[in-house]
Amino acid sequence: MNIVKQENGFTVLHKDRTVFTHSLDKPAIFLGSGQGTFDMYRGNFDIKDYVESRLPMRAFRIDEEGDKTSITLGVEGEDYLTLTIYETEEGRLIVDFNSLKDEVNRFWMRVHATPEEKVYGCGEQLTYFNLRGKNFPLWTSEPGVGRNKNNYVTWLADTKDKAGGDYYNTNYPQPTFVSNDKYFCHLQTTAYADFDFRHDDFHELQAWNIPDYLLFDREDSFTALVGNISNVFGTQPELPDWVLDGVILGVQGGTDITLEKIERARKAGVKVAGVWNQDWQGIKMTSFGKRLHWNWEWSPELYPGLDTKIHELKEDGVRFLGYINPYVLEGQSLYKIAKEKGYLATKADGGDYLVDFGEFYCGVVDFTNDEACEWYKGVIKENLIGFGLDGWMADFSEYLPTDCTLSNGRSAELEHNDWPRRWAKINHEAIEECGKIDDILFFMRAGGTGFQRYCHVLWAGDQCVDWCIEDGLASVIPGALSAGLMGNGIHHSDVGGYTTLHGMKRTKELMMRWIDFCAFTPMMRSHEGNRPGDNHQFDTDDETLFHLGRMSRVFASMKPYLKAAIAENTEAGIPVMRPLFMHYEQDETAYDIQFQYLLGRDVIVAPVYNKEETEWKLYLPEDDWVHAWSGQAFKGGWVTVDAPLGEPPVFYRKSSEYADLFAALPQVAKA
Amino acid sequence: MNIVKQENGFTVLHKDRTVFTHSLDKPAIFLGSGQGTFDMYRGNFDIKDYVESRLPMRAFRIDEEGDKTSITLGVEGEDYLTLTIYETEEGRLIVDFNSLKDEVNRFWMRVHATPEEKVYGCGEQLTYFNLRGKNFPLWTSEPGVGRNKNNYVTWLADTKDKAGGDYYNTNYPQPTFVSNDKYFCHLQTTAYADFDFRHDDFHELQAWNIPDYLLFDREDSFTALVGNISNVFGTQPELPDWVLDGVILGVQGGTDITLEKIERARKAGVKVAGVWNQDWQGIKMTSFGKRLHWNWEWSPELYPGLDTKIHELKEDGVRFLGYINPYVLEGQSLYKIAKEKGYLATKADGGDYLVDFGEFYCGVVDFTNDEACEWYKGVIKENLIGFGLDGWMADFSEYLPTDCTLSNGRSAELEHNDWPRRWAKINHEAIEECGKIDDILFFMRAGGTGFQRYCHVLWAGDQCVDWCIEDGLASVIPGALSAGLMGNGIHHSDVGGYTTLHGMKRTKELMMRWIDFCAFTPMMRSHEGNRPGDNHQFDTDDETLFHLGRMSRVFASMKPYLKAAIAENTEAGIPVMRPLFMHYEQDETAYDIQFQYLLGRDVIVAPVYNKEETEWKLYLPEDDWVHAWSGQAFKGGWVTVDAPLGEPPVFYRKSSEYADLFAALPQVAKA
Repeated sequence: MNIVKQENGFTVLHKDRTVFTHSLDKPAIFLGSGQGTFDMYRGNFDIKDYVESRLPMRAFRIDEEGDKTSITLGVEGEDYLTLTIYETEEGRLIVDFNSLKDEVNRFWMRVHATPEEKVYGCGEQLTYFNLRGKNFPLWTSEPGVGRNKNNYVTWLADTKDKAGGDYYNTNYPQPTFVSNDKYFCHLQTTAYADFDFRHDDFHELQAWNIPDYLLFDREDSFTALVGNISNVFGTQPELPDWVLDGVILGVQGGTDITLEKIERARKAGVKVAGVWNQDWQGIKMTSFGKRLHWNWEWSPELYPGLDTKIHELKEDGVRFLGYINPYVLEGQSLYKIAKEKGYLATKADGGDYLVDFGEFYCGVVDFTNDEACEWYKGVIKENLIGFGLDGWMADFSEYLPTDCTLSNGRSAELEHNDWPRRWAKINHEAIEECGKIDDILFFMRAGGTGFQRYCHVLWAGDQCVDWCIEDGLASVIPGALSAGLMGNGIHHSDVGGYTTLHGMKRTKELMMRWIDFCAFTPMMRSHEGNRPGDNHQFDTDDETLFHLGRMSRVFASMKPYLKAAIAENTEAGIPVMRPLFMHYEQDETAYDIQFQYLLGRDVIVAPVYNKEETEWKLYLPEDDWVHAWSGQAFKGGWVTVDAPLGEPPVFYRKSSEYADLFAALPQVAKA
Repeated sequence: MNIVKQENGFTVLHKDRTVFTHSLDKPAIFLGSGQGTFDMYRGNFDIKDYVESRLPMRAFRIDEEGDKTSITLGVEGEDYLTLTIYETEEGRLIVDFNSLKDEVNRFWMRVHATPEEKVYGCGEQLTYFNLRGKNFPLWTSEPGVGRNKNNYVTWLADTKDKAGGDYYNTNYPQPTFVSNDKYFCHLQTTAYADFDFRHDDFHELQAWNIPDYLLFDREDSFTALVGNISNVFGTQPELPDWVLDGVILGVQGGTDITLEKIERARKAGVKVAGVWNQDWQGIKMTSFGKRLHWNWEWSPELYPGLDTKIHELKEDGVRFLGYINPYVLEGQSLYKIAKEKGYLATKADGGDYLVDFGEFYCGVVDFTNDEACEWYKGVIKENLIGFGLDGWMADFSEYLPTDCTLSNGRSAELEHNDWPRRWAKINHEAIEECGKIDDILFFMRAGGTGFQRYCHVLWAGDQCVDWCIEDGLASVIPGALSAGLMGNGIHHSDVGGYTTLHGMKRTKELMMRWIDFCAFTPMMRSHEGNRPGDNHQFDTDDETLFHLGRMSRVFASMKPYLKAAIAENTEAGIPVMRPLFMHYEQDETAYDIQFQYLLGRDVIVAPVYNKEETEWKLYLPEDDWVHAWSGQAFKGGWVTVDAPLGEPPVFYRKSSEYADLFAALPQVAKA
């Protein structure tokens, strides 16, 4: 680090890059106070701010104390904030913030930018990969249905349920970004934040409190940079081996149906690694569709005999996965226990705080209470792991209301964005304490700073069962790429999408395209959607089932390659699904590609995300590429290839040590 | 006025009401700087602000100098603003603002409020009459199509044309409000402003410059208050007598069609005061519908012989009205003259600035250039008045782009909201200089501070030809009431509405209800709409034509009463259409009634604004009321009456000196 003093200002540099610069004319930091309002309706937030003051911190005073530099900022005559700037042992730059004014609750900092710079990250962003030119409110919430105000589905969702969302809504926001200049910048806060990338010469980072610190580091390569980031937020464990053996079928409806579906799929040549039964604990019907009975224990009514069948299935090579979330259904046994023991978030007066999940209400387990965490971990250990589940969806955690009262005494507004980390930690520890990290997995849609070390797999949330760019198949790709840069190296999506509302129905073509796509991700798992009857399913007809068979074999045949890529994620923090620029830094075009990805080092995937396409145009960085289905060689540039169903545009490097494996894919698909 | 000094603050009172109060904790004024962006698309603006700073002006210093008190505000050690507070000769309170910092371009002032207070005004507001609980951006623009984001038409308009609008969009904004506490408050600025009535104990008035002054006054009655306001913004002339003789038929298509329509209407018993032919200067077709040929002179092609017919019609008691607006069509004669003489707004480099009006482009006549004003006034005198027009729609004036260059050197951003006043002045002076104020009228939809003294009649803009509350018939009523409180006492609307897009078609029922409504306003004028072929017209069938006949006779029969009410507007500034609380101050309910009005002192009108109603519920303040159609007596309260077509809910005061006139209405209607 290097702090250069100028007349009326100073500049902070790290590894030859300006981090921020301050002058009387262009102060780096503004402080003030605001009154925010959070209006939550079923996980969708209408957030407004009334900014009472925003004061440029023009006055500054620099003190050097050994390895640290302390800068006090304020307005003339009054000190507001002390920055303590130093390098960590690992060589990262830290700017610690220490507020000197209690009334300040708004923070804006201008980090240096250049006009042509591109930035990525901010958690899992589903509409834009390059975030420049927009601002990104960072608040974990429902991701929205449609997510584009010009989309009719979005309008219907907004009008009926306040649920349409916008380009920035995400289950997993994180106040961290990565630049094409090979640095990353993280603002440590769990408050509501907003990163504004609309300005030419600065990125303005806003937070609704004084953040703990700013973290900045730079590397010579993107692989080193994501490794660095991964070290900051925690390393993910490797996926259990069995996940790579085939598809995890998302099925529902009871023991017999599940067994029949497995049987039929296998007969059609489907490699079945597991079944995922989100209704293992029983269901309830609402106008939204089938919803689950949120009292986390096996439902012998819906799944008779599963307590023995689950073990037989496992011996037969089929894992059984279930579902849980951090809420307990009003009036049921877990709710009663939690309420009696004081494990639930409450109203300010201590009264019950029930959250509306759409025609039913739940208590929020208070994860700031260590005893409550231990108890909930116990529920997972006993009711899920103890029952024999090999994995589960650890759903939700975005619904912490800002006005509930928590046992640690901290404002729920400040805890809200930290809830996914707390939820991930409980799941991870339950598995770890059972010694099952290598064998059991869970997957989440919500996320936040530091949950990386706990969350085994991310899934892309609730895509629409249609072709819309912002909320359909296409949106999964920027989601995977942005999350991957934040240290979440293992990502997948519901095969076929999820949200089935407002007239949307999953077509056969969409289902088949999504199967094609997910065969080239580190995990393959289908979902029936919230209204299964409206959707084409993997077993709706034989053609689809055979298609799934083909693509599940393709997926399974890549196990050695995927296993190596997954290991690389754990060892070096390099995500399995990578932006093209990760390995082609000199390629300017690569920085603008948001609907293609590298799967590991040697494979490029360009999923078809529009309907009725017969060929597909895509970009290849300069290298020796082989088209997986035709064997045709490509050197790079914009190319168009045939893209029938079952032959998603996939290319591998001629020089790959796995070239023989890839060359065999057409054969595997046919077998 | 009275300025009370407190420890660390002061309070400014006027006529026993606190105007604003200042303390270190709660400063009255905040100053700062911002970077606004105005993205205009065909008169619809997307306006954003990046507020760089917002500084509470905590420090203050009070100096008394004779009758004036000067207060200097600032942040510690730096003066930012001097307030000069004094009373005018008329006893109004003025707070003059004098900026001491060039870089300040954002102003926020907190005017004292009480939690239960209700406020009205802000120009012509079409969605809300009581403005409390919302903020109102004040910027003259298209009013929006649908004006409710939950309305499908709004969504279509937004998606296709960025034209959906919202509750606050209006052609006529004004930074003035009236309180139920019988005061008014005006912020003299033509900059973008935003009045925020969401706070309990203050109204926050925002402007994007330092306003000239704040004006405040209070009266003992609402009639005195509107008289006071009218004195501030200017008194309107009386309507020409002939306007009250019947309906002005909005017709198009040429001389023969016009004569035929007059003939047929008269035969059906319609009292025809005039015809309004917006296409008198010829038409052009666009995808929006028929548009006019914006080169302001008689079209002998479309209207052969009109130069003589217009005088024959006048002798026959039928006035002929036309159309003009402040733009000139690219390439046409007026454009060429204006361009040659330098009468058009330009780009910064002096190049042509053409504004997109939807498939055609126009120059903006530069009204900051006195010569240009005289020239345009001459166009009106020669081409309109000289040709024999008895009136016209003076359309538009909301489209001044913020980035054009004007001859007075002032920023177009600051001129934008003043354009309607400049436009009104030109029209008024053209008529006045011809000595025709008593005989010729023009009507506008756009407005702004001070245009009252020039604008003879307001019309409610472009309602949708449907039943939506925010942009249909209903919306005219809060529009008339809010504008009326600002000193615009004469208001009317297009009978049947105007905007015919996105599948909307005017039904017969809507046309008949609108005829019923407009028979009880000070002017009755129909409009075919932008797609006449999609709409039910006054002469589409005999039933409608007879209906218009009935209601035009009703309207004409009220001439003595309306004439007196119109005179009262000119003399005392009391609008013709009045909120119920104007004369029933003690009635708490009256303050919440936004879809009814008093027509003059003695008549209450409650237009039916929903389809397929057979009866109508409405509110009557305590008085002796007579139902106009049944003669039934009412004392007040919520009542329900039969409301068939042709019998709009109308009540008159039993004690009215015009009681006999009203009692005859059923007979007049039948005749």
